[in-house]
Amino acid sequence: MSGNSTDLFERAAALFASVQEHICSALETIDQKGRFLSDQWEKDQTDGITSGGGISRVMAEGAVFEKGGVNLSKVGGSFEPALAERLGLAPVRTPFRATGVSLVIHPRNPMVPTTHANWRFIEAGGRWWFGGGSDLTPYYVFSEDAVHFHTVLRTICDQHDPSYYPRFKKWCDEYFYLPHRKEHRGIGGIFFDYLGKEGGVSFEPLLSFVRDLGFGFIDQYVPIVSRRHTLPFTDDDRKFQLLRRGRYVEFNLLYDRGTQFGLQTGGRTESILMSLPPTVCWEYNFEPKEDPRQIELMDVVRSPRDWLTER
Amino acid sequence: MSGNSTDLFERAAALFASVQEHICSALETIDQKGRFLSDQWEKDQTDGITSGGGISRVMAEGAVFEKGGVNLSKVGGSFEPALAERLGLAPVRTPFRATGVSLVIHPRNPMVPTTHANWRFIEAGGRWWFGGGSDLTPYYVFSEDAVHFHTVLRTICDQHDPSYYPRFKKWCDEYFYLPHRKEHRGIGGIFFDYLGKEGGVSFEPLLSFVRDLGFGFIDQYVPIVSRRHTLPFTDDDRKFQLLRRGRYVEFNLLYDRGTQFGLQTGGRTESILMSLPPTVCWEYNFEPKEDPRQIELMDVVRSPRDWLTER
Repeated sequence: MSGNSTDLFERAAALFASVQEHICSALETIDQKGRFLSDQWEKDQTDGITSGGGISRVMAEGAVFEKGGVNLSKVGGSFEPALAERLGLAPVRTPFRATGVSLVIHPRNPMVPTTHANWRFIEAGGRWWFGGGSDLTPYYVFSEDAVHFHTVLRTICDQHDPSYYPRFKKWCDEYFYLPHRKEHRGIGGIFFDYLGKEGGVSFEPLLSFVRDLGFGFIDQYVPIVSRRHTLPFTDDDRKFQLLRRGRYVEFNLLYDRGTQFGLQTGGRTESILMSLPPTVCWEYNFEPKEDPRQIELMDVVRSPRDWLTER
Repeated sequence: MSGNSTDLFERAAALFASVQEHICSALETIDQKGRFLSDQWEKDQTDGITSGGGISRVMAEGAVFEKGGVNLSKVGGSFEPALAERLGLAPVRTPFRATGVSLVIHPRNPMVPTTHANWRFIEAGGRWWFGGGSDLTPYYVFSEDAVHFHTVLRTICDQHDPSYYPRFKKWCDEYFYLPHRKEHRGIGGIFFDYLGKEGGVSFEPLLSFVRDLGFGFIDQYVPIVSRRHTLPFTDDDRKFQLLRRGRYVEFNLLYDRGTQFGLQTGGRTESILMSLPPTVCWEYNFEPKEDPRQIELMDVVRSPRDWLTER
C-alpha cells in the first residue's frame, strides 16, 4: 500500500476495510455464538490475470447465521480488449485495479432473509468508478421487513441524489433475475455500477455515498434479523428454505457477473464461492401449492414490487 | 412422428426411447423401493428458440438411489449464426432437430458413485451427427469399480472402432474439468461428439455403436452399485459426499455445454436441472486432511488415471 492519502484507490480500500470490520463486529454481536474467522490471502498471477490479496472473514455454524462471509479484496490485472470495450474503454488490453467488500449472509431460521451486499471501486484506462448495492432474499415475505430494508436504502440514497433510489432499485430488480425460472432472486434492494466513470461527479461525494451505504447496511438488515430469528419454524419451512437456496446457487453460478469474472480471471475460488449456501436442496418440479406463505413468496419473486409506494 | 422407417432422426429417437425404458426398468429392479415416475412434457416456441417435447422419468427417495433422472427429448429450433459457425456449418440461422436421452443418478450411500450418461442425435444444415458418453463420479475410490466401468466401455468401443476408446476417454477427461478447482469431475469414462458429421462413416454402424453403449450402460454401472450399496458409512462419509456433490453443481451450472445451451435456448428448465443432486453442501476452504480415502479421491480427480493399463 502506498499510504498516500491522495491515492483514490487506497482511500476506497481503507473505507472497505473499515466497513468489513464494522459489519463483522455487528453481526457477531447479534449472533452471540458465531465468530468471523479471518483468512488473509495473497495470490500471484500464475493462475490467471488477477493478482492481489484480501481478507476473507467467514462465520460457520453461528447460532443465528448458519454461514456468513464478508470478503475484502484488493486485486490488479488486465482487462482483455473485448472486456475493456464493453466497459466503454479503448479496445486494448487495459491494466486495472479493483478493491471492494462483498458479503453474503445465510441465516439458519427460514423466517430470517438471506442478504447480499457489495461495494467496489475500480480504476482502469485513466478512469475510476464505484459499483455495488445490497439486496434481500427472504424465504417468507414479511412486508414490514421489505419496507424497512428499502426505506433505509432510499433514505441514504436521497441524501446524496434523489434520482439514485428509483434508478438503482430498478437496476437491482433487473440484475437479480433468473430467466430460466422467470423469477427474481428476492425482494430487491439497490444495484449500481460505473458511478463516476463518465465524470460529472467527483470522488468525494461518491466515496461519502458508498460510506453511508456500507455503514448503513447493519441498520438495513439487523433489525429484521432481531425480530425474526427466534420465530418458530417447521421441517417444512426448513425444506422450503433449502429449495429456495437452490435458486441462489443457480443465480450465482449461471448469471452473477462478479462470480463469472472472478473465476474466469483466476480470482481466489474459495473467496468467490463463499457466497454459496451451506446446505441446499433440489427437488424435481417443486412448486408450492398449499402453503399461502410459500405461494406469496413465489408471487413476489415473479412480480417485483415497489415496496415504498404500495403500503 | 413420421413413422417413416427411413427417417434417421426417428430411428435414433426410437432407440433412445427404448434405452430410457431399459435403464429405468433395470434401476428400479436394483432399488426395489423407488419407482421412476413419468412426466411427459411439451413446449412451444414462445419462450425461446426450442420447441418439442419429451418424457422425464424421475425417481425420488429410492432405497438405493436418493435421486435419479432419465430424460428423453425430441426438440427442434434454430441455431444462431455464430453457433452454426462454431459447429462447422454455414454461418447463418440454421434449423436443427435434436433427440437424446440423458441421465444422472445420485445414490444415497457415499460408497456408491454418482453416474451420468447421455446419447444424442442432431440434424442440422443437411448434416447429422451423434454425441454422448458416460462417466462415473465416485466419492471414494474403489479401483475395481473404475476398472470395471472403463473395461465395459472399452469392450463396446473396440467392437466398433479400436480408435474410439483412447480418443473418447481422453476427451471425457478434458471435458469434465473444473478449471477453478483444478479438478476433474470424477474418474471419467468416454465423451464424444460430431460422430458422423464429416461423413466417412454411415448411419447404421454409428446407430449400432450408440445402441450398444445405451444398452451396455446397465452392465457398466449396476454391478458397482450391487457391491457397494450395503456398505456401512459414517456421518463424516455422508458429509464428504454432500461437499463433493457441490463440485457436481459447480460443473453443471458453470461449464456444462448441454445445460447452458438448454437454458439459453428456452429448453425445459426442470428437465435440464434434473441433474442437480437432491442435497448439497458447501463449506469454506474444505480440504480433506486426515482420511486417506478422501485424500485419495482428491488425488484421483486432480490427476486422471488410465485405469486399464495401471493395474
